[in-house]
Amino acid sequence: MLPPTVLAEFAALLGTERARVDADTLALYAQDETPGRCTPEAVLFPTSHAEVVGCVRLALEHKLPITPRGAGSGNVGGAQPTPGSVVLSFECMNRIVEFDPANRLIVVEPGVITQDIDRLARSAGLMYAPDPGSGAYSRIGGNLAMNAAGPRAVKYGVTRDHVLGLRAVDGSGRELRTGSRTSKYATGYDLTRLLIGSEGTLALITEATLRLVPAPERTVSLRVCYASDTAACTAVQRIMQQAVVPSALEFMDRRSIEAITEFGAAEGLPPGTEAVLMVEADGPAEDIPRQVAALENALRGDGLLELQTGFTPAEIQNLWTARKSLSHAVKKIAPLKLNEDVVVPVSRLAELVAAIDAMGTLHRLPIVSFGHAGNGNLHVNLMVHPDDEGEMARAEACLRELIETVLRLGGTLSGEHGIGNKKRKFILLEIEPDTLALMRDLKRVFDPQGILNPGKKLPD
Amino acid sequence: MLPPTVLAEFAALLGTERARVDADTLALYAQDETPGRCTPEAVLFPTSHAEVVGCVRLALEHKLPITPRGAGSGNVGGAQPTPGSVVLSFECMNRIVEFDPANRLIVVEPGVITQDIDRLARSAGLMYAPDPGSGAYSRIGGNLAMNAAGPRAVKYGVTRDHVLGLRAVDGSGRELRTGSRTSKYATGYDLTRLLIGSEGTLALITEATLRLVPAPERTVSLRVCYASDTAACTAVQRIMQQAVVPSALEFMDRRSIEAITEFGAAEGLPPGTEAVLMVEADGPAEDIPRQVAALENALRGDGLLELQTGFTPAEIQNLWTARKSLSHAVKKIAPLKLNEDVVVPVSRLAELVAAIDAMGTLHRLPIVSFGHAGNGNLHVNLMVHPDDEGEMARAEACLRELIETVLRLGGTLSGEHGIGNKKRKFILLEIEPDTLALMRDLKRVFDPQGILNPGKKLPD
Repeated sequence: MLPPTVLAEFAALLGTERARVDADTLALYAQDETPGRCTPEAVLFPTSHAEVVGCVRLALEHKLPITPRGAGSGNVGGAQPTPGSVVLSFECMNRIVEFDPANRLIVVEPGVITQDIDRLARSAGLMYAPDPGSGAYSRIGGNLAMNAAGPRAVKYGVTRDHVLGLRAVDGSGRELRTGSRTSKYATGYDLTRLLIGSEGTLALITEATLRLVPAPERTVSLRVCYASDTAACTAVQRIMQQAVVPSALEFMDRRSIEAITEFGAAEGLPPGTEAVLMVEADGPAEDIPRQVAALENALRGDGLLELQTGFTPAEIQNLWTARKSLSHAVKKIAPLKLNEDVVVPVSRLAELVAAIDAMGTLHRLPIVSFGHAGNGNLHVNLMVHPDDEGEMARAEACLRELIETVLRLGGTLSGEHGIGNKKRKFILLEIEPDTLALMRDLKRVFDPQGILNPGKKLPD
Repeated sequence: MLPPTVLAEFAALLGTERARVDADTLALYAQDETPGRCTPEAVLFPTSHAEVVGCVRLALEHKLPITPRGAGSGNVGGAQPTPGSVVLSFECMNRIVEFDPANRLIVVEPGVITQDIDRLARSAGLMYAPDPGSGAYSRIGGNLAMNAAGPRAVKYGVTRDHVLGLRAVDGSGRELRTGSRTSKYATGYDLTRLLIGSEGTLALITEATLRLVPAPERTVSLRVCYASDTAACTAVQRIMQQAVVPSALEFMDRRSIEAITEFGAAEGLPPGTEAVLMVEADGPAEDIPRQVAALENALRGDGLLELQTGFTPAEIQNLWTARKSLSHAVKKIAPLKLNEDVVVPVSRLAELVAAIDAMGTLHRLPIVSFGHAGNGNLHVNLMVHPDDEGEMARAEACLRELIETVLRLGGTLSGEHGIGNKKRKFILLEIEPDTLALMRDLKRVFDPQGILNPGKKLPD
């Protein structure tokens, strides 16, 4: 816990209610959605850019590491405190600063809930395109820190593609303003995108100007069942080689279908289903039939068992039942999920899925894989019992084999979850030494004392 | 000129034909498309990544600044040599390294001509979306250096949005590899976008992996004539507030129409035309009528004189005649064009255009403005006689007033041309001191000896 004199300085800055050291608060902020916990020294709740600047300056003075935190919904330990750190929560910085539909932009504080931005945008016929699975509770600051994405990324891109400018505070307490309010910017260095995905290790984002796009008039869903993983992955390739880009292209592998079946949520699937694609198309109502026809055409092929298209909200909801049950179903397999977020070029997806299947057999582990197939982005979940040492050792070996396979296929460690404290050990397998050295140099420029989210993103 | 011993070292690395100090070559590389020239000490033509590394290491050893160069088609002096520098031309690094339609990507060397990338992509039903006006001769390396764009940016985004990864050499001779081959990447810091638009001041790009998108099946053009600048700008606002995003939305102001008229290329325009919008829509043939109807609806309003839609290539070409004559017409006004590339939020475009009109009157200067109105990106051309000192002084005052106006309207100095050596003096008006200090720190990380394109991008 913080020495009382230091706590008093934070309390003088933020008010006693917003500089907390009570046991309940410390316990609540000791973890995020990732396994593992570490009690912080204090939890700070600034309410403004100026207060964040003040917090960083006090932290510098007292050599206190800061663990920044949005909703704590990340699953790589990005918001897990490091020993001796204070958590800086952005929950109280949750104002919409400005909504400017005429210029298709919105200015928000980092504590705004992702889905609320989209909801407000929709009121003016616009959309905030990135749609992480956690969007109903994640905070936009966390999305920016991790470069979050979701199903719509296949058509609309990721968080990085929807930010015009940022306000931020670096590890020296310097106040930064990046980008502009305009849809084009070629003036300064692109600090905006350097901060996006930097996981709070370079600067604390205190305000973001986000780009909005026209909301599609209509969305339809297709559920497509295949007799094998390979058949489904081949269909993904066909989809991504024709001109209609779907607004979602989600894959569930054989192990996922087994899990759903065991959970009792697979009654709607035809016999023999071993893989499912969930596909969405969006656009003007007039254009939907053309898109659906093109997608259906590409989805048809060897191993297709059933293709159902849902046009009404009720039909769409029904088609998504199996997919929505997946995260609950997976929890029944084993208590702990080791969740990877790998990406490969779309043409290599079938190879990756086959390799994962073989790894599960070799290492005797249930591995459930699903995800954003249109981007080649697969969530690979190794289901384990944390108190089974042998199983944990096999899982460790399996994870390394997975990462090596992904890199051999021309892929990357993370598509949307980021690195946090969980995947740092694999960075050296992907990023070349000179490039990594340069990244460390950049970290020192932004944060010479190393107080911003230490122990995350880059290996020590 | 380089001392013979130093030249010999470059010649040993590159071959004598590719390390040139002959007067003709030096004269040819003393300038780019920007007024002003400075003879370099030598011109180097590396043919590979390894040779670029070698060049940087030799330059470091001999403390030689490097002026990197693509086609030399930039108009902010980005490729203009600084005194004592060697030009490093990427013209001989012009190979397509890999074309991978299945993964919608292409790997190119920096010397490949922009349009050739698009042409190759089209052979597989794909498109390289960025389309700078210079695309027929610009090199992709220059596009990357400047974060180039063009008319299609309003729908498809700028160069930055179409790059997956880079290979590069920094100012210490370190070899960098950024990003990945995948459409999602949340692993390391986003060095890719930090390098894009950094104008060769951070690293020399030796290879780029570019993202391709499905080529539209059909394109149509609309030429829309208005009775005033305000009427046209208001129509731009209406277009950007409805759901159909055009694939181009180009504006020509009253002075542009006057120039075209004097040039004798305005016979097709209805009497009273004071501003013209050129609008394009693209997409599947089936969907074009719907798009055109929506755009026409938004284009109609006060001050509309004529709306013509061209569906066939001949019709489209005919509609663009006036616009295509503009650059020739402008040259007739005065020998020197001071070319700005400002951007404002779309809702402020009418104010900007009115302010420019007033500035032209106040400073007694012909100012011709046209550009990518859908992005709020205006090319403002002050036409001057460089030997008229009074006029040049008035132009200087006018430029400053223009930049101050743009910033007051929430805009930025450059949308697509970059800063080069021509606009550095205005950077301090836009970028805050702490943010600029950080940019300088980044420059030192990449280029501690300051050998990469000194005198460009950031003010001294």
